[in-house]
Amino acid sequence: MFKLHEQLEKDCIELGQFELCTLLLMNDSSYPWFILVPERENVSEIYELSDEDQLLLSKESNFLALILKNYFYADKINIAALGNVVPQLHIHHIARYHEDRSWPAPVWGKHEAIKYEEDELNKIFDVVNKAISETAVID
Amino acid sequence: MFKLHEQLEKDCIELGQFELCTLLLMNDSSYPWFILVPERENVSEIYELSDEDQLLLSKESNFLALILKNYFYADKINIAALGNVVPQLHIHHIARYHEDRSWPAPVWGKHEAIKYEEDELNKIFDVVNKAISETAVID
Repeated sequence: MFKLHEQLEKDCIELGQFELCTLLLMNDSSYPWFILVPERENVSEIYELSDEDQLLLSKESNFLALILKNYFYADKINIAALGNVVPQLHIHHIARYHEDRSWPAPVWGKHEAIKYEEDELNKIFDVVNKAISETAVID
Repeated sequence: MFKLHEQLEKDCIELGQFELCTLLLMNDSSYPWFILVPERENVSEIYELSDEDQLLLSKESNFLALILKNYFYADKINIAALGNVVPQLHIHHIARYHEDRSWPAPVWGKHEAIKYEEDELNKIFDVVNKAISETAVID
């Protein structure tokens, strides 16, 4: 049975489920940083997913990227499947801005996370909910 | 007309073409580090590709990932579309090893590149050619 890796559980806030993936928010207010985790057991690499699941992942990734672009006004979107520390397949989707604290470097290992305050978190929830309700359902 | 970004041209060695992408080798012998560049103009994000091109990208990415796994014996594969410095869409595919110089950190910004010697480069070419000739053609 699929179970979210304990490190992801510790570092992230669970926002909901798409058809394939759990949607997480990294608890770091430095950037709008989301993670998609396909709910499949013992999968570490994208190519290990079935063709059908890869298509779903692609759709859910596009859907999330468009939210980062259109609702979080990202200057650039960083998408990455690394997994050197947490082997459970998870795909980072990070909205980057020309003035963010790590730009133009990748975000990993640059700074300690700055955890969200409750009101900041509520704002993120509101934007994500609005985005999902207004964006066409994934076909 | 599609033209490879000058920074990629400077940092990489061109290995060949798939149906959608140019295949590059980053000139850094620290890791087997390949880059796929879809031959499309003015595209910075994966979601900007057509559905058909996204499917091709997915196939070519899987094909390359399997080469990293089966011919370069990667412990983990890092796949990333960042593009904070080079806006032309390009997708990193890096074979990572438990004992490589940056493990478990991501590779970006960790170390100066160590350029390949000619004999090392020839070995890489041989492995890639063998891999492509032995691996089933992308369907």
